[in-house]
Amino acid sequence: MASAMVANGDLSAVKFPAPATGRVAVVYSEVQNSRLDHALPLPSVLKTSFKVVEGPPSSAAGHPEEIAKLFPCVFGQPSTMLVPSQLGEFPSSQSLKIGVVLSGGQAPGGHNVISGIFDYLQNSCKGSTLYGFKGGPAGIMKCKYVVLTPEYIYPYRNQGGFDMICSGRDKIETPEQFKQAEETALKLDLDGLVVIGGDDSNTNACLLAENFRSKNLKTRVIGCPKTIDGDLKCKEVPTSFGFDTACKIYAEMIGNVMTDARSTGKYYHFVRLMGRAASHITLECALQTHPNITLIGEEVAAKKETLKNVTDYIADVICKRAELGYNYGVILIPEGLIDFIPEVQQLIAELNEILAHETVDEGGLWKNKLEQQSLKLFELLPPAIQEQLMLERDPHGNVQVAKIETEKMLIQMVETELEHRKQRGAYKCQFKGQSHFFGYEGRCGLPSNFDSTYCYALGYAAGVLLHSGKTGLISSVGNLAAPVEEWTVGGTALTSLMDVERRHGIVTTNPNTGQLGQIPRVVICNAKVQSKFKPVIKKAMVELDGAPFKKFASMREEWAINNRYISPGPIQFVGPVADRVNHTLLLELGAQA
Amino acid sequence: MASAMVANGDLSAVKFPAPATGRVAVVYSEVQNSRLDHALPLPSVLKTSFKVVEGPPSSAAGHPEEIAKLFPCVFGQPSTMLVPSQLGEFPSSQSLKIGVVLSGGQAPGGHNVISGIFDYLQNSCKGSTLYGFKGGPAGIMKCKYVVLTPEYIYPYRNQGGFDMICSGRDKIETPEQFKQAEETALKLDLDGLVVIGGDDSNTNACLLAENFRSKNLKTRVIGCPKTIDGDLKCKEVPTSFGFDTACKIYAEMIGNVMTDARSTGKYYHFVRLMGRAASHITLECALQTHPNITLIGEEVAAKKETLKNVTDYIADVICKRAELGYNYGVILIPEGLIDFIPEVQQLIAELNEILAHETVDEGGLWKNKLEQQSLKLFELLPPAIQEQLMLERDPHGNVQVAKIETEKMLIQMVETELEHRKQRGAYKCQFKGQSHFFGYEGRCGLPSNFDSTYCYALGYAAGVLLHSGKTGLISSVGNLAAPVEEWTVGGTALTSLMDVERRHGIVTTNPNTGQLGQIPRVVICNAKVQSKFKPVIKKAMVELDGAPFKKFASMREEWAINNRYISPGPIQFVGPVADRVNHTLLLELGAQA
Repeated sequence: MASAMVANGDLSAVKFPAPATGRVAVVYSEVQNSRLDHALPLPSVLKTSFKVVEGPPSSAAGHPEEIAKLFPCVFGQPSTMLVPSQLGEFPSSQSLKIGVVLSGGQAPGGHNVISGIFDYLQNSCKGSTLYGFKGGPAGIMKCKYVVLTPEYIYPYRNQGGFDMICSGRDKIETPEQFKQAEETALKLDLDGLVVIGGDDSNTNACLLAENFRSKNLKTRVIGCPKTIDGDLKCKEVPTSFGFDTACKIYAEMIGNVMTDARSTGKYYHFVRLMGRAASHITLECALQTHPNITLIGEEVAAKKETLKNVTDYIADVICKRAELGYNYGVILIPEGLIDFIPEVQQLIAELNEILAHETVDEGGLWKNKLEQQSLKLFELLPPAIQEQLMLERDPHGNVQVAKIETEKMLIQMVETELEHRKQRGAYKCQFKGQSHFFGYEGRCGLPSNFDSTYCYALGYAAGVLLHSGKTGLISSVGNLAAPVEEWTVGGTALTSLMDVERRHGIVTTNPNTGQLGQIPRVVICNAKVQSKFKPVIKKAMVELDGAPFKKFASMREEWAINNRYISPGPIQFVGPVADRVNHTLLLELGAQA
Repeated sequence: MASAMVANGDLSAVKFPAPATGRVAVVYSEVQNSRLDHALPLPSVLKTSFKVVEGPPSSAAGHPEEIAKLFPCVFGQPSTMLVPSQLGEFPSSQSLKIGVVLSGGQAPGGHNVISGIFDYLQNSCKGSTLYGFKGGPAGIMKCKYVVLTPEYIYPYRNQGGFDMICSGRDKIETPEQFKQAEETALKLDLDGLVVIGGDDSNTNACLLAENFRSKNLKTRVIGCPKTIDGDLKCKEVPTSFGFDTACKIYAEMIGNVMTDARSTGKYYHFVRLMGRAASHITLECALQTHPNITLIGEEVAAKKETLKNVTDYIADVICKRAELGYNYGVILIPEGLIDFIPEVQQLIAELNEILAHETVDEGGLWKNKLEQQSLKLFELLPPAIQEQLMLERDPHGNVQVAKIETEKMLIQMVETELEHRKQRGAYKCQFKGQSHFFGYEGRCGLPSNFDSTYCYALGYAAGVLLHSGKTGLISSVGNLAAPVEEWTVGGTALTSLMDVERRHGIVTTNPNTGQLGQIPRVVICNAKVQSKFKPVIKKAMVELDGAPFKKFASMREEWAINNRYISPGPIQFVGPVADRVNHTLLLELGAQA
């Protein structure tokens, strides 16, 4: 504080020349600038000469015989691991032509994966070319790309977002689309392609790998694990990138809200957090901040909770706190909560069907089409939520769960319940709820030191795997609780993460609950012609016997009644705190968190 | 990144003993811990021996003759300034009994004001006692306090929130309440009282100062300028504390959303920002982040914009951007926007009156009571907003403007307008709005280095002013664009910031627009018996000929069409970026921002 003041986000900050697209002249804040030259350590094995060793043949996460049929060329590949070796394995004179694509929603660190691939090629495969496909998989199909150069990449190093080449949600699925991808691979003479994406995108990457190999194309395909949701992971891939940063950003905000709650003493803050399918983000934020109540979707599903149960649980804690003199609190809610509640799933399925086939009359006669239990539930819901359930449909005719303001719904339901209790004399305070949704602001933050380093290693590893001729693997960097030097580097067969879904009315499992479910008829009606078995990478849900949940469960009663709030504060990029890693990862790795 | 990983918010973090209240055992994150011992530099003048010099007698911001009548004892006091002096002015042996109270909404840095007072007393008035009144001004009236000790204060140093002694929104207004305050002052033998608050609380502080002096009590009263809104400032008080931190937190989130917008390429993000009366926060965030559109309430009022004008302006920019190939953007909206739109004020006034006196029938016949223009406007509003206008009333029967989701209203209105333009062929894209409200998460963040240092100096100065026997002043720390050593320290007569409001149907000015207004009759009906003239510290609104607005206005067209987004990133506490100050302050001080 000794020097004269200069404004934050100084307008005289370094201006970069417009990148090759000519589209965006970037002006950076000081913090952004300071990140550009942040040094990224590499695992030791990547800094020396190494060789690639292979393990035993792999299987699949489920139905291996079906996966083997779907991926005859790439099924069963061993996982690979880099180990130091006196004799460098690859000719450094070889130059490669590699494409890279960002697929799906943003996650902090995506740019560093690309930087990692690029730097590996620059350092180990002189004369190589890296093509960045623009706007996601559509860029592959339309052969829309930019040639990535040091100057093009530099402004994106350690920066958030996916704006270097942008992303998209298209998939390469139909025979025509595979044909387009082949044409691009041939036109650019691609030796390899790196697909940076979540579970669906990595499934797609494996289908591409299979397809290219079956056509005898030389183009290999390597995936990279991306999603803030944290639900793409397995033994060899301990975490997906972006999860660490997003959770830290949400936890900063939650910590601030907690301080506010304690200072004001009169509000219950209901915080809904992004991360639809699994509740990892909510669980991690709980471990970082110690809220009074945390709802974990997987637990709600396992216990077959009803909306009334959930409401009662919240009301119970509020009443107990009221007796202790606390008329405030913080409650964390995963975005996908209502997806985990069996009775709500049922209601939504019935509504989907009614809306697809019936006219919804003002008078409400349509409600007679609902089953008794669903009607009762529907009538219990606040009018605004009823409206959201009736109005918002995605192109497939399904409710857009992410748009349902669960936090507001719960506030209203808890308010009603507490009103009843008040009349019975069981509650004497005045309940005031405040709703929050933390979502977009976490997806595109500046990556934490952990995500910056992890992504760089993932990208570097993807380069190595392609250089060594591998295909159908996902870049795997492990031993993440140890110092970076000791991180392991390798690749894991994508097919080993897969199971199949059967789609034509025979069996279906709810991706959240894992339960066999009644199939809403509308889904069957909407189903297009598709293979009977569909390969999927199973989402890694919160495991109720896993270390993170068990730690949370052992402490939540204490957090509910006493106030053990922790405010993590803003992400720091320098100083002793800067290199910390999230609890979930460390607990799962058995390290001290 | 070289050392082994330890989790963020380590559960084994330092645990503090429960403070004297026995209520809260605090567990801190590493960042919180690292802030506890953050060294706070003091202005040089406070580090040496100094004397207090006085300027000429002061006047008032308006109607000085009325202010003089309302404050016969304290009106006209000169401003004071500390200057270095060989002869220390005060006997260091004198011990004082001082009270401190936090009043109104939280702002980052409040704890440091208290630390500053405490440290001054410890260093310069050995044997002094500092009483922290609990829960705001009610704590004074009920004589509820805690004796602050080094151990009690330590865990709150450089921490966010007001939870050390909590705050409240009560005011000391009636003769009985003043009597209670006197009793407390006598009971505790108070030499002084520091009131940390916004414009209303500082007005109240001055009334207390006047009252104590008129009763010949020895208790002096000093105010401190607190509000994240940034609307309590004048020449001698260049900024209110908390503004810097809150804006930086909001700007971090806005910058992230901008990166998201650019990466995704398909959303318009409508971001409503806390700060109801004035648009300083929105303006500062715009200067830090360069959004495509920024609405400034004071400009909307000055230009007498209608809601239709505002909607058209946004739609125009969206259409122009669509032509350039940009189907995304970020729009900043001040919380109080609709308060600034004359036709909305009129509508709300009419609704207040109707709701106070009429039964609102389902059929909508009540709408006939609306004036033609108001009816037209009401019908233009989206149903959800109509409902919010009808339902939410504060205890005085007024609409709670802060609860109206202006960002959602604008999304719907812009959507409708763009639909019309699409039909005319004037717009060809698909508009998708995303709404955000950034509020509570900014009020209680860890204070920035600037707010930490500024608050500490404000508290220290308040101690000096009380020690030197001053009353009715607001602690004033100036020259803030210079290094901390060169900051000036003094006190400014609270009456010099005041004007009067006349309440009984004769003249009233809208606090936002400064315009003389038609008085809604319901306000007259609700008015309780009160003095004809009410003293108020005028809110400092955004000045359209001030440097911050002019800088913004000179750049906004560029920002609208091109994408000049800046992502400030999370607040850093160490490193070269940590000591930066907000643009508004520097521009107003004529410094390079």
